[in-house]
Amino acid sequence: MTDASVLVIGLGSMGFGMAQSCLRGGLATYGVDTNAEAEARFAEIGGALLTADQDLDEFDVAVVVVLNAAQLNAVLFGPEGIVPQMRAGSVVIACPTVAPSVARKMAAQCADSGVHYLDAPISGGSLKAAEGKLSIMASGSTEAFAAARPVLNATSTTVFELGTEPGKGSAMKAVNQLLAGVHIATMGEAMAFSMTQGIAPQTFLDVIRQCAGSSWMLENRAPHVIDGDYTPRSQVNIWPKDLGIVLDIARDAGFSAPITAAALQQYMVAVGMGLGAEDDAAITKVYARNAGLKLPVTDS
Amino acid sequence: MTDASVLVIGLGSMGFGMAQSCLRGGLATYGVDTNAEAEARFAEIGGALLTADQDLDEFDVAVVVVLNAAQLNAVLFGPEGIVPQMRAGSVVIACPTVAPSVARKMAAQCADSGVHYLDAPISGGSLKAAEGKLSIMASGSTEAFAAARPVLNATSTTVFELGTEPGKGSAMKAVNQLLAGVHIATMGEAMAFSMTQGIAPQTFLDVIRQCAGSSWMLENRAPHVIDGDYTPRSQVNIWPKDLGIVLDIARDAGFSAPITAAALQQYMVAVGMGLGAEDDAAITKVYARNAGLKLPVTDS
Repeated sequence: MTDASVLVIGLGSMGFGMAQSCLRGGLATYGVDTNAEAEARFAEIGGALLTADQDLDEFDVAVVVVLNAAQLNAVLFGPEGIVPQMRAGSVVIACPTVAPSVARKMAAQCADSGVHYLDAPISGGSLKAAEGKLSIMASGSTEAFAAARPVLNATSTTVFELGTEPGKGSAMKAVNQLLAGVHIATMGEAMAFSMTQGIAPQTFLDVIRQCAGSSWMLENRAPHVIDGDYTPRSQVNIWPKDLGIVLDIARDAGFSAPITAAALQQYMVAVGMGLGAEDDAAITKVYARNAGLKLPVTDS
Repeated sequence: MTDASVLVIGLGSMGFGMAQSCLRGGLATYGVDTNAEAEARFAEIGGALLTADQDLDEFDVAVVVVLNAAQLNAVLFGPEGIVPQMRAGSVVIACPTVAPSVARKMAAQCADSGVHYLDAPISGGSLKAAEGKLSIMASGSTEAFAAARPVLNATSTTVFELGTEPGKGSAMKAVNQLLAGVHIATMGEAMAFSMTQGIAPQTFLDVIRQCAGSSWMLENRAPHVIDGDYTPRSQVNIWPKDLGIVLDIARDAGFSAPITAAALQQYMVAVGMGLGAEDDAAITKVYARNAGLKLPVTDS
Protein backbone atom coordinates (compact mmCIF):
# COMPACT_ATOMS: atom_id res chain seq x y z
CA MET A 1 0.00 0.00 0.00
CA THR A 2 1.13 3.58 -0.63
CA ASP A 3 -0.54 5.15 2.39
CA ALA A 4 1.53 5.58 5.50
CA SER A 5 1.03 3.46 8.56
CA VAL A 6 0.84 5.68 11.62
CA LEU A 7 1.12 5.13 15.35
CA VAL A 8 -0.25 7.92 17.55
CA ILE A 9 1.14 7.78 21.09
CA GLY A 10 -0.96 9.76 23.55
CA LEU A 11 -4.72 9.98 22.95
CA GLY A 12 -5.48 13.02 25.11
CA SER A 13 -7.46 15.91 23.69
CA MET A 14 -4.81 16.83 21.11
CA GLY A 15 -3.57 13.34 20.28
CA PHE A 16 -7.09 11.95 19.94
CA GLY A 17 -7.99 14.70 17.47
CA MET A 18 -4.83 14.13 15.46
CA ALA A 19 -5.43 10.37 15.37
CA GLN A 20 -9.01 11.04 14.28
CA SER A 21 -7.74 13.30 11.48
CA CYS A 22 -5.25 10.65 10.35
CA LEU A 23 -8.08 8.10 10.17
CA ARG A 24 -10.21 10.54 8.19
CA GLY A 25 -7.26 11.10 5.88
CA GLY A 26 -7.21 7.41 5.01
CA LEU A 27 -4.03 6.55 6.89
CA ALA A 28 -3.71 3.17 8.61
CA THR A 29 -3.81 4.61 12.12
CA TYR A 30 -3.05 2.86 15.40
CA GLY A 31 -3.35 4.50 18.80
CA VAL A 32 -1.97 3.84 22.25
CA ASP A 33 -2.45 5.53 25.61
CA THR A 34 -1.77 4.60 29.23
CA ASN A 35 -5.41 5.52 29.89
CA ALA A 36 -7.76 2.65 28.92
CA GLU A 37 -10.73 5.03 28.55
CA ALA A 38 -8.87 7.09 25.97
CA GLU A 39 -8.07 3.91 24.03
CA ALA A 40 -11.69 2.77 24.22
CA ARG A 41 -12.88 6.09 22.82
CA PHE A 42 -10.44 5.75 19.93
CA ALA A 43 -11.62 2.20 19.22
CA GLU A 44 -15.22 3.50 19.17
CA ILE A 45 -14.49 5.80 16.24
CA GLY A 46 -12.85 2.98 14.31
CA GLY A 47 -9.26 3.38 15.38
CA ALA A 48 -6.97 0.40 15.80
CA LEU A 49 -5.24 -0.11 19.14
CA LEU A 50 -1.63 -1.12 19.45
CA THR A 51 -1.30 -4.63 20.81
CA ALA A 52 1.38 -5.71 23.25
CA ASP A 53 3.12 -8.05 20.80
CA GLN A 54 2.84 -5.78 17.77
CA ASP A 55 5.99 -5.14 15.79
CA LEU A 56 6.82 -1.44 15.72
CA ASP A 57 8.87 -1.70 12.56
CA GLU A 58 5.66 -1.82 10.54
CA PHE A 59 5.05 1.89 11.18
CA ASP A 60 6.23 4.66 8.87
CA VAL A 61 5.39 7.41 11.34
CA ALA A 62 5.12 7.68 15.12
CA VAL A 63 3.30 10.80 16.31
CA VAL A 64 4.10 11.53 19.94
CA VAL A 65 1.48 13.74 21.61
CA VAL A 66 2.47 13.76 25.27
CA LEU A 67 2.70 16.55 27.84
CA ASN A 68 6.35 17.36 28.33
CA ALA A 69 10.02 16.56 27.75
CA ALA A 70 10.16 13.81 30.41
CA GLN A 71 7.25 11.93 28.83
CA LEU A 72 8.70 12.44 25.35
CA ASN A 73 12.03 11.01 26.47
CA ALA A 74 10.33 8.04 28.17
CA VAL A 75 8.22 7.24 25.09
CA LEU A 76 11.20 7.43 22.73
CA PHE A 77 14.06 6.04 24.81
CA GLY A 78 12.69 4.71 28.12
CA PRO A 79 12.65 1.01 29.12
CA GLU A 80 9.92 0.37 26.52
CA GLY A 81 11.05 3.19 24.25
CA ILE A 82 9.88 2.96 20.66
CA VAL A 83 12.86 4.30 18.74
CA PRO A 84 15.14 1.24 19.08
CA GLN A 85 12.20 -0.84 17.78
CA MET A 86 11.40 1.37 14.78
CA ARG A 87 12.79 0.68 11.33
CA ALA A 88 15.43 2.90 9.77
CA GLY A 89 13.89 5.58 7.57
CA SER A 90 10.74 5.95 9.63
CA VAL A 91 10.02 9.23 11.40
CA VAL A 92 9.07 10.46 14.86
CA ILE A 93 6.82 13.53 14.88
CA ALA A 94 7.36 15.12 18.30
CA CYS A 95 4.48 17.45 19.24
CA PRO A 96 4.96 18.48 22.89
CA THR A 97 6.27 21.92 23.76
CA VAL A 98 9.87 21.37 24.84
CA ALA A 99 13.09 23.37 24.96
CA PRO A 100 14.98 23.50 21.65
CA SER A 101 17.92 21.77 23.34
CA VAL A 102 15.64 18.81 24.16
CA ALA A 103 14.54 18.60 20.52
CA ARG A 104 18.17 18.62 19.36
CA LYS A 105 19.09 15.86 21.82
CA MET A 106 16.11 13.68 20.86
CA ALA A 107 16.87 14.14 17.16
CA ALA A 108 20.49 13.13 17.64
CA GLN A 109 19.47 10.02 19.59
CA CYS A 110 16.92 9.10 16.91
CA ALA A 111 19.62 9.47 14.27
CA ASP A 112 21.64 6.80 16.11
CA SER A 113 18.84 4.37 15.20
CA GLY A 114 18.48 5.70 11.66
CA VAL A 115 15.10 7.19 12.59
CA HIS A 116 14.19 10.71 11.39
CA TYR A 117 12.92 13.27 13.89
CA LEU A 118 10.55 16.11 13.12
CA ASP A 119 10.51 18.79 15.80
CA ALA A 120 6.84 19.67 15.43
CA PRO A 121 5.02 21.51 18.22
CA ILE A 122 1.35 22.01 17.47
CA SER A 123 -0.97 24.96 17.96
CA GLY A 124 -4.71 25.39 17.66
CA GLY A 125 -6.47 23.50 20.45
CA SER A 126 -8.42 20.25 20.54
CA LEU A 127 -11.22 21.36 18.20
CA LYS A 128 -8.79 22.16 15.40
CA ALA A 129 -6.91 18.93 16.12
CA ALA A 130 -10.14 16.98 15.56
CA GLU A 131 -10.87 18.91 12.36
CA GLY A 132 -7.38 18.39 10.94
CA LYS A 133 -6.81 22.14 11.02
CA LEU A 134 -3.81 22.52 13.32
CA SER A 135 -0.86 24.83 12.83
CA ILE A 136 2.45 23.01 13.14
CA MET A 137 5.78 24.75 13.77
CA ALA A 138 8.20 22.26 12.32
CA SER A 139 11.89 21.82 11.68
CA GLY A 140 13.94 18.82 10.66
CA SER A 141 15.77 17.23 7.77
CA THR A 142 14.28 17.03 4.29
CA GLU A 143 13.90 13.29 4.88
CA ALA A 144 12.04 13.89 8.14
CA PHE A 145 9.60 16.26 6.43
CA ALA A 146 9.10 13.86 3.51
CA ALA A 147 8.37 10.90 5.77
CA ALA A 148 6.05 12.99 7.96
CA ARG A 149 4.17 14.59 5.07
CA PRO A 150 1.09 12.29 5.01
CA VAL A 151 0.46 13.01 8.69
CA LEU A 152 1.13 16.76 8.33
CA ASN A 153 -1.35 16.87 5.44
CA ALA A 154 -4.01 14.99 7.38
CA THR A 155 -3.75 16.97 10.61
CA SER A 156 -2.94 20.57 9.71
CA THR A 157 -3.81 23.45 7.44
CA THR A 158 -0.58 25.36 8.10
CA VAL A 159 2.91 23.91 8.45
CA PHE A 160 5.56 26.51 9.21
CA GLU A 161 8.73 24.97 7.80
CA LEU A 162 11.44 26.48 9.96
CA GLY A 163 14.50 24.86 8.49
CA THR A 164 16.48 21.67 8.77
CA GLU A 165 17.70 22.14 12.33
CA PRO A 166 15.70 20.36 15.05
CA GLY A 167 14.91 22.88 17.80
CA LYS A 168 13.74 25.69 15.53
CA GLY A 169 10.17 24.41 15.67
CA SER A 170 10.32 24.24 19.46
CA ALA A 171 11.90 27.71 19.63
CA MET A 172 9.10 29.23 17.54
CA LYS A 173 6.50 27.48 19.68
CA ALA A 174 8.15 28.96 22.79
CA VAL A 175 8.02 32.43 21.22
CA ASN A 176 4.33 32.00 20.47
CA GLN A 177 3.66 30.75 24.00
CA LEU A 178 5.52 33.73 25.48
CA LEU A 179 3.20 36.07 23.59
CA ALA A 180 0.03 34.05 24.12
CA GLY A 181 0.64 33.58 27.84
CA VAL A 182 1.42 37.25 28.41
CA HIS A 183 -1.56 38.35 26.32
CA ILE A 184 -4.05 36.18 28.23
CA ALA A 185 -2.79 37.45 31.59
CA THR A 186 -2.79 41.03 30.31
CA MET A 187 -6.38 40.57 29.16
CA GLY A 188 -7.24 39.62 32.74
CA GLU A 189 -5.26 42.54 34.15
CA ALA A 190 -6.91 45.03 31.80
CA MET A 191 -10.45 43.70 32.16
CA ALA A 192 -10.30 43.70 35.96
CA PHE A 193 -8.67 47.15 35.90
CA SER A 194 -11.50 48.44 33.74
CA MET A 195 -14.03 47.06 36.23
CA THR A 196 -12.44 49.17 38.99
CA GLN A 197 -13.35 52.17 36.82
CA GLY A 198 -16.96 51.09 36.38
CA ILE A 199 -16.52 49.67 32.87
CA ALA A 200 -18.50 46.45 32.37
CA PRO A 201 -16.64 43.44 30.91
CA GLN A 202 -18.87 43.39 27.82
CA THR A 203 -18.19 47.10 27.16
CA PHE A 204 -14.48 46.41 27.65
CA LEU A 205 -14.58 43.75 24.92
CA ASP A 206 -16.85 45.71 22.57
CA VAL A 207 -14.52 48.71 22.60
CA ILE A 208 -11.08 47.10 22.85
CA ARG A 209 -11.64 44.59 20.04
CA GLN A 210 -11.93 47.63 17.73
CA CYS A 211 -8.86 49.36 19.17
CA ALA A 212 -5.09 49.11 19.01
CA GLY A 213 -5.08 47.36 22.42
CA SER A 214 -6.57 44.17 21.03
CA SER A 215 -4.92 40.79 20.71
CA TRP A 216 -5.96 37.43 19.32
CA MET A 217 -6.04 36.02 22.84
CA LEU A 218 -8.06 38.91 24.25
CA GLU A 219 -10.76 38.43 21.63
CA ASN A 220 -10.75 34.68 22.21
CA ARG A 221 -10.61 34.55 26.04
CA ALA A 222 -12.48 37.65 27.24
CA PRO A 223 -15.83 36.09 26.23
CA HIS A 224 -15.15 33.18 28.60
CA VAL A 225 -14.95 35.63 31.52
CA ILE A 226 -18.01 37.54 30.32
CA ASP A 227 -19.96 34.26 30.12
CA GLY A 228 -18.60 33.08 33.48
CA ASP A 229 -17.64 29.89 31.63
CA TYR A 230 -14.33 28.38 32.72
CA THR A 231 -14.79 25.00 31.03
CA PRO A 232 -11.16 24.33 30.06
CA ARG A 233 -10.50 24.85 26.37
CA SER A 234 -6.90 25.45 27.48
CA GLN A 235 -6.00 24.99 31.16
CA VAL A 236 -4.32 27.43 33.53
CA ASN A 237 -1.93 24.53 34.26
CA ILE A 238 -0.39 24.82 30.79
CA TRP A 239 1.11 28.22 31.53
CA PRO A 240 3.43 27.60 34.48
CA LYS A 241 4.82 24.77 32.34
CA ASP A 242 5.11 26.65 29.04
CA LEU A 243 6.24 30.03 30.43
CA GLY A 244 8.63 28.05 32.62
CA ILE A 245 10.13 26.53 29.46
CA VAL A 246 10.37 30.01 27.93
CA LEU A 247 12.22 31.34 30.97
CA ASP A 248 14.50 28.28 31.08
CA ILE A 249 15.47 28.88 27.46
CA ALA A 250 15.85 32.60 28.15
CA ARG A 251 18.13 31.99 31.14
CA ASP A 252 20.31 29.65 29.11
CA ALA A 253 20.57 32.37 26.45
CA GLY A 254 21.36 35.15 28.96
CA PHE A 255 18.08 36.83 28.05
CA SER A 256 16.07 38.96 30.50
CA ALA A 257 12.30 38.59 30.00
CA PRO A 258 10.66 40.59 32.80
CA ILE A 259 7.16 40.78 31.31
CA THR A 260 7.04 37.02 30.81
CA ALA A 261 8.28 36.59 34.37
CA ALA A 262 5.52 38.86 35.73
CA ALA A 263 2.87 36.95 33.80
CA LEU A 264 4.20 33.61 35.04
CA GLN A 265 3.83 34.78 38.65
CA GLN A 266 0.14 35.52 38.03
CA TYR A 267 -0.43 32.00 36.65
CA MET A 268 1.34 30.58 39.69
CA VAL A 269 -1.05 32.50 41.93
CA ALA A 270 -3.93 31.07 39.90
CA VAL A 271 -2.63 27.53 40.44
CA GLY A 272 -2.21 28.32 44.14
CA MET A 273 -5.84 29.43 44.24
CA GLY A 274 -6.86 25.98 42.94
CA LEU A 275 -7.71 27.18 39.45
CA GLY A 276 -5.17 24.99 37.60
CA ALA A 277 -7.73 22.81 35.84
CA GLU A 278 -9.95 25.73 34.80
CA ASP A 279 -9.83 27.54 31.47
CA ASP A 280 -6.87 29.90 31.37
CA ALA A 281 -9.21 32.90 31.21
CA ALA A 282 -9.54 32.20 34.96
CA ILE A 283 -6.33 34.19 35.39
CA THR A 284 -8.79 37.10 35.62
CA LYS A 285 -9.97 35.66 38.96
CA VAL A 286 -6.55 36.38 40.47
CA TYR A 287 -6.96 40.08 39.71
CA ALA A 288 -10.60 40.09 40.82
CA ARG A 289 -9.77 38.46 44.15
CA ASN A 290 -6.88 40.85 44.80
CA ALA A 291 -9.09 43.89 44.18
CA GLY A 292 -12.34 42.58 45.66
CA LEU A 293 -14.15 42.58 42.32
CA LYS A 294 -17.07 40.34 41.37
CA LEU A 295 -16.70 38.74 37.94
CA PRO A 296 -19.72 37.68 35.86
CA VAL A 297 -21.16 34.27 36.75
CA THR A 298 -22.78 31.87 34.34
CA ASP A 299 -26.57 31.85 34.03
CA SER A 300 -26.77 28.07 33.89
CA MET B 1 -24.66 80.11 9.79
CA THR B 2 -25.59 76.62 10.92
CA ASP B 3 -22.08 75.20 10.94
CA ALA B 4 -20.21 75.15 14.21
CA SER B 5 -17.37 77.54 14.89
CA VAL B 6 -14.43 75.60 16.28
CA LEU B 7 -11.24 76.54 18.10
CA VAL B 8 -8.50 73.88 18.12
CA ILE B 9 -5.96 74.47 20.89
CA GLY B 10 -2.73 72.60 20.28
CA LEU B 11 -1.59 72.08 16.69
CA GLY B 12 0.87 69.23 17.28
CA SER B 13 0.64 66.08 15.19
CA MET B 14 -2.78 65.08 16.51
CA GLY B 15 -4.28 68.57 16.90
CA PHE B 16 -3.10 69.66 13.48
CA GLY B 17 -4.75 66.65 11.87
CA MET B 18 -8.00 67.21 13.76
CA ALA B 19 -8.03 70.90 12.80
CA GLN B 20 -7.38 69.89 9.19
CA SER B 21 -10.31 67.45 9.35
CA CYS B 22 -12.58 70.15 10.80
CA LEU B 23 -11.64 72.46 7.91
CA ARG B 24 -12.32 69.70 5.40
CA GLY B 25 -15.68 69.13 7.10
CA GLY B 26 -16.67 72.71 6.38
CA LEU B 27 -16.46 73.95 9.95
CA ALA B 28 -15.24 77.49 10.63
CA THR B 29 -11.97 76.41 12.22
CA TYR B 30 -9.46 78.51 14.15
CA GLY B 31 -6.22 77.18 15.52
CA VAL B 32 -3.78 78.26 18.19
CA ASP B 33 -0.46 76.91 19.40
CA THR B 34 2.42 78.24 21.49
CA ASN B 35 4.67 77.10 18.61
CA ALA B 36 4.69 79.71 15.79
CA GLU B 37 5.82 77.12 13.24
CA ALA B 38 2.79 74.96 13.97
CA GLU B 39 0.52 77.98 13.52
CA ALA B 40 2.23 78.89 10.24
CA ARG B 41 1.70 75.34 8.93
CA PHE B 42 -1.98 75.57 9.80
CA ALA B 43 -2.32 78.95 8.06
CA GLU B 44 -0.68 77.40 4.97
CA ILE B 45 -3.50 74.87 4.59
CA GLY B 46 -6.10 77.62 4.89
CA GLY B 47 -6.73 77.57 8.62
CA ALA B 48 -7.53 80.74 10.54
CA LEU B 49 -5.36 81.69 13.49
CA LEU B 50 -6.72 82.97 16.76
CA THR B 51 -5.84 86.64 17.27
CA ALA B 52 -4.90 88.12 20.63
CA ASP B 53 -7.99 90.32 20.89
CA GLN B 54 -10.46 87.74 19.56
CA ASP B 55 -13.59 87.12 21.59
CA LEU B 56 -13.81 83.48 22.68
CA ASP B 57 -17.57 83.58 23.12
CA GLU B 58 -17.97 83.27 19.36
CA PHE B 59 -16.90 79.62 19.47
CA ASP B 60 -19.32 76.74 19.80
CA VAL B 61 -16.58 74.17 20.40
CA ALA B 62 -13.07 74.26 21.84
CA VAL B 63 -11.03 71.15 21.05
CA VAL B 64 -8.09 70.83 23.43
CA VAL B 65 -5.32 68.61 22.04
CA VAL B 66 -2.48 69.04 24.51
CA LEU B 67 -0.12 66.55 26.13
CA ASN B 68 -1.24 66.04 29.69
CA ALA B 69 -3.41 67.02 32.64
CA ALA B 70 -1.27 70.01 33.63
CA GLN B 71 -1.49 71.52 30.14
CA LEU B 72 -5.22 70.78 29.97
CA ASN B 73 -5.79 72.54 33.29
CA ALA B 74 -3.69 75.53 32.20
CA VAL B 75 -5.57 75.88 28.90
CA LEU B 76 -8.96 75.68 30.56
CA PHE B 77 -8.45 77.44 33.89
CA GLY B 78 -4.96 78.99 33.96
CA PRO B 79 -4.26 82.76 33.96
CA GLU B 80 -5.41 82.97 30.33
CA GLY B 81 -7.79 80.03 30.68
CA ILE B 82 -10.47 79.81 28.02
CA VAL B 83 -13.44 78.50 29.97
CA PRO B 84 -14.32 81.72 31.84
CA GLN B 85 -14.31 83.47 28.45
CA MET B 86 -16.52 80.93 26.64
CA ARG B 87 -20.24 81.38 26.32
CA ALA B 88 -22.70 79.20 28.23
CA GLY B 89 -23.83 76.22 26.18
CA SER B 90 -20.57 75.84 24.29
CA VAL B 91 -18.48 72.69 24.77
CA VAL B 92 -14.90 71.74 25.55
CA ILE B 93 -13.71 68.53 23.87
CA ALA B 94 -10.80 67.33 26.00
CA CYS B 95 -8.53 64.93 24.07
CA PRO B 96 -5.44 64.30 26.21
CA THR B 97 -5.02 61.05 28.11
CA VAL B 98 -5.68 61.94 31.76
CA ALA B 99 -6.88 60.18 34.88
CA PRO B 100 -10.68 59.85 35.14
CA SER B 101 -10.54 61.94 38.32
CA VAL B 102 -8.99 64.79 36.34
CA ALA B 103 -11.77 64.58 33.76
CA ARG B 104 -14.42 64.69 36.49
CA LYS B 105 -12.78 67.74 38.10
CA MET B 106 -12.45 69.62 34.79
CA ALA B 107 -16.06 68.84 33.90
CA ALA B 108 -17.29 70.14 37.24
CA GLN B 109 -15.30 73.37 36.86
CA CYS B 110 -16.61 73.84 33.31
CA ALA B 111 -20.15 73.40 34.61
CA ASP B 112 -19.56 76.36 36.95
CA SER B 113 -19.27 78.50 33.79
CA GLY B 114 -22.19 76.79 32.06
CA VAL B 115 -19.77 75.16 29.62
CA HIS B 116 -20.25 71.51 28.64
CA TYR B 117 -17.31 69.11 28.86
CA LEU B 118 -16.78 66.06 26.69
CA ASP B 119 -14.22 63.65 28.12
CA ALA B 120 -12.87 62.50 24.76
CA PRO B 121 -9.46 60.82 24.54
CA ILE B 122 -8.48 59.99 20.99
CA SER B 123 -6.85 56.96 19.41
CA GLY B 124 -5.44 56.26 15.98
CA GLY B 125 -2.27 58.30 15.43
CA SER B 126 -1.51 61.39 13.39
CA LEU B 127 -2.30 59.89 9.99
CA LYS B 128 -5.83 58.98 11.03
CA ALA B 129 -6.22 62.38 12.68
CA ALA B 130 -5.40 64.04 9.35
CA GLU B 131 -7.83 61.76 7.52
CA GLY B 132 -10.68 62.37 9.97
CA LYS B 133 -10.64 58.69 10.90
CA LEU B 134 -9.87 58.74 14.62
CA SER B 135 -11.49 56.61 17.27
CA ILE B 136 -12.78 58.66 20.19
CA MET B 137 -13.60 57.23 23.61
CA ALA B 138 -16.12 59.71 24.90
CA SER B 139 -18.33 60.34 27.88
CA GLY B 140 -20.33 63.35 28.95
CA SER B 141 -23.84 64.78 29.16
CA THR B 142 -26.29 64.54 26.29
CA GLU B 143 -25.80 68.28 25.80
CA ALA B 144 -22.03 67.88 25.64
CA PHE B 145 -22.34 65.18 22.96
CA ALA B 146 -24.86 67.25 20.98
CA ALA B 147 -22.70 70.37 21.00
CA ALA B 148 -19.59 68.34 20.10
CA ARG B 149 -21.24 66.33 17.33
CA PRO B 150 -20.07 68.41 14.32
CA VAL B 151 -16.46 68.01 15.43
CA LEU B 152 -16.88 64.31 16.27
CA ASN B 153 -18.35 63.75 12.79
CA ALA B 154 -15.53 65.64 11.08
CA THR B 155 -12.65 64.00 12.92
CA SER B 156 -13.61 60.40 13.62
CA THR B 157 -15.09 57.26 12.15
CA THR B 158 -15.82 55.64 15.51
CA VAL B 159 -17.13 57.33 18.64
CA PHE B 160 -17.47 55.00 21.60
CA GLU B 161 -20.22 56.62 23.68
CA LEU B 162 -19.41 55.50 27.20
CA GLY B 163 -22.17 57.18 29.15
CA THR B 164 -22.98 60.52 30.71
CA GLU B 165 -20.31 60.46 33.39
CA PRO B 166 -17.09 62.35 32.59
CA GLY B 167 -14.14 60.08 33.34
CA LYS B 168 -15.48 56.99 31.59
CA GLY B 169 -13.83 58.05 28.33
CA SER B 170 -10.53 58.58 30.11
CA ALA B 171 -10.88 55.26 31.93
CA MET B 172 -11.42 53.38 28.68
CA LYS B 173 -8.45 55.15 27.11
CA ALA B 174 -6.32 54.09 30.08
CA VAL B 175 -7.45 50.48 29.62
CA ASN B 176 -6.52 50.59 25.95
CA GLN B 177 -3.13 52.14 26.76
CA LEU B 178 -2.46 49.45 29.37
CA LEU B 179 -2.98 46.79 26.71
CA ALA B 180 -1.24 48.66 23.89
CA GLY B 181 1.80 49.53 26.02
CA VAL B 182 2.19 45.99 27.31
CA HIS B 183 1.70 44.50 23.85
CA ILE B 184 4.38 46.70 22.25
CA ALA B 185 6.90 45.85 24.95
CA THR B 186 5.97 42.16 24.75
CA MET B 187 6.50 42.29 20.98
CA GLY B 188 10.02 43.55 21.69
CA GLU B 189 10.59 40.90 24.36
CA ALA B 190 9.37 38.09 22.09
CA MET B 191 11.19 39.24 18.95
CA ALA B 192 14.51 39.62 20.74
CA PHE B 193 13.95 36.30 22.52
CA SER B 194 13.34 34.63 19.16
CA MET B 195 16.62 36.10 17.86
CA THR B 196 18.51 34.37 20.69
CA GLN B 197 17.15 31.11 19.21
CA GLY B 198 18.28 31.93 15.69
CA ILE B 199 14.87 32.99 14.41
CA ALA B 200 15.10 36.01 12.10
CA PRO B 201 12.78 38.98 12.84
CA GLN B 202 10.98 38.58 9.50
CA THR B 203 10.34 34.88 10.20
CA PHE B 204 9.10 35.83 13.67
CA LEU B 205 6.53 38.20 12.14
CA ASP B 206 5.54 35.88 9.28
CA VAL B 207 4.74 33.05 11.66
CA ILE B 208 3.35 34.87 14.69
CA ARG B 209 0.92 37.04 12.71
CA GLN B 210 -0.82 33.78 11.76
CA CYS B 211 -0.79 32.40 15.31
CA ALA B 212 -2.63 32.88 18.60
CA GLY B 213 0.29 34.95 19.91
CA SER B 214 -0.47 37.88 17.66
CA SER B 215 -1.69 41.32 18.66
CA TRP B 216 -2.68 44.46 16.79
CA MET B 217 0.42 46.19 18.12
CA LEU B 218 2.75 43.34 17.19
CA GLU B 219 1.56 43.40 13.59
CA ASN B 220 1.87 47.19 13.48
CA ARG B 221 5.20 47.70 15.26
CA ALA B 222 7.29 44.60 14.41
CA PRO B 223 7.76 45.86 10.80
CA HIS B 224 9.42 49.02 12.18
CA VAL B 225 12.09 46.90 13.86
CA ILE B 226 12.48 44.68 10.78
CA ASP B 227 12.96 47.80 8.62
CA GLY B 228 15.30 49.39 11.18
CA ASP B 229 13.02 52.43 10.91
CA TYR B 230 12.46 54.25 14.21
CA THR B 231 10.93 57.42 12.73
CA PRO B 232 8.43 58.19 15.48
CA ARG B 233 4.84 57.36 14.54
CA SER B 234 4.28 57.10 18.30
CA GLN B 235 7.15 57.96 20.65
CA VAL B 236 8.70 55.89 23.43
CA ASN B 237 8.11 58.99 25.61
CA ILE B 238 4.36 58.47 25.51
CA TRP B 239 4.56 55.26 27.51
CA PRO B 240 6.15 56.32 30.81
CA LYS B 241 3.44 59.00 30.84
CA ASP B 242 0.47 56.82 29.86
CA LEU B 243 1.43 53.69 31.80
CA GLY B 244 2.22 56.02 34.70
CA ILE B 245 -1.37 57.29 34.51
CA VAL B 246 -2.62 53.70 34.41
CA LEU B 247 -0.65 52.80 37.53
CA ASP B 248 -1.74 56.01 39.31
CA ILE B 249 -5.36 55.11 38.66
CA ALA B 250 -4.69 51.51 39.69
CA ARG B 251 -3.04 52.56 42.96
CA ASP B 252 -5.98 54.82 43.80
CA ALA B 253 -8.30 51.88 43.14
CA GLY B 254 -6.24 49.41 45.21
CA PHE B 255 -5.50 47.44 42.06
CA SER B 256 -2.30 45.43 41.52
CA ALA B 257 -1.11 45.51 37.89
CA PRO B 258 2.24 43.69 37.84
CA ILE B 259 2.47 43.13 34.08
CA THR B 260 1.85 46.82 33.36
CA ALA B 261 4.46 47.69 35.98
CA ALA B 262 7.02 45.38 34.34
CA ALA B 263 6.35 46.92 30.91
CA LEU B 264 6.67 50.45 32.33
CA GLN B 265 10.13 49.62 33.67
CA GLN B 266 11.26 48.59 30.18
CA TYR B 267 10.06 51.91 28.73
CA MET B 268 11.91 53.74 31.47
CA VAL B 269 15.10 51.91 30.50
CA ALA B 270 14.46 52.95 26.89
CA VAL B 271 14.14 56.59 27.95
CA GLY B 272 17.30 56.22 30.01
CA MET B 273 19.08 54.90 26.91
CA GLY B 274 18.15 58.11 25.10
CA LEU B 275 15.47 56.52 22.94
CA GLY B 276 12.57 58.67 24.19
CA ALA B 277 11.98 60.49 20.92
CA GLU B 278 12.21 57.36 18.76
CA ASP B 279 9.30 55.24 17.61
CA ASP B 280 8.04 53.08 20.47
CA ALA B 281 9.11 49.93 18.61
CA ALA B 282 12.57 50.98 19.85
CA ILE B 283 11.66 49.25 23.11
CA THR B 284 13.14 46.23 21.30
CA LYS B 285 16.56 47.92 21.55
CA VAL B 286 16.45 47.56 25.34
CA TYR B 287 16.18 43.79 25.00
CA ALA B 288 18.77 43.67 22.23
CA ARG B 289 21.29 45.67 24.26
CA ASN B 290 20.73 43.54 27.36
CA ALA B 291 21.34 40.34 25.41
CA GLY B 292 24.04 41.56 23.02
CA LEU B 293 21.84 41.13 19.94
CA LYS B 294 22.13 43.06 16.69
CA LEU B 295 18.79 44.33 15.37
CA PRO B 296 18.20 44.98 11.67
CA VAL B 297 19.41 48.37 10.41
CA THR B 298 17.84 50.41 7.67
CA ASP B 299 19.24 50.17 4.15
CA SER B 300 18.94 53.91 3.59
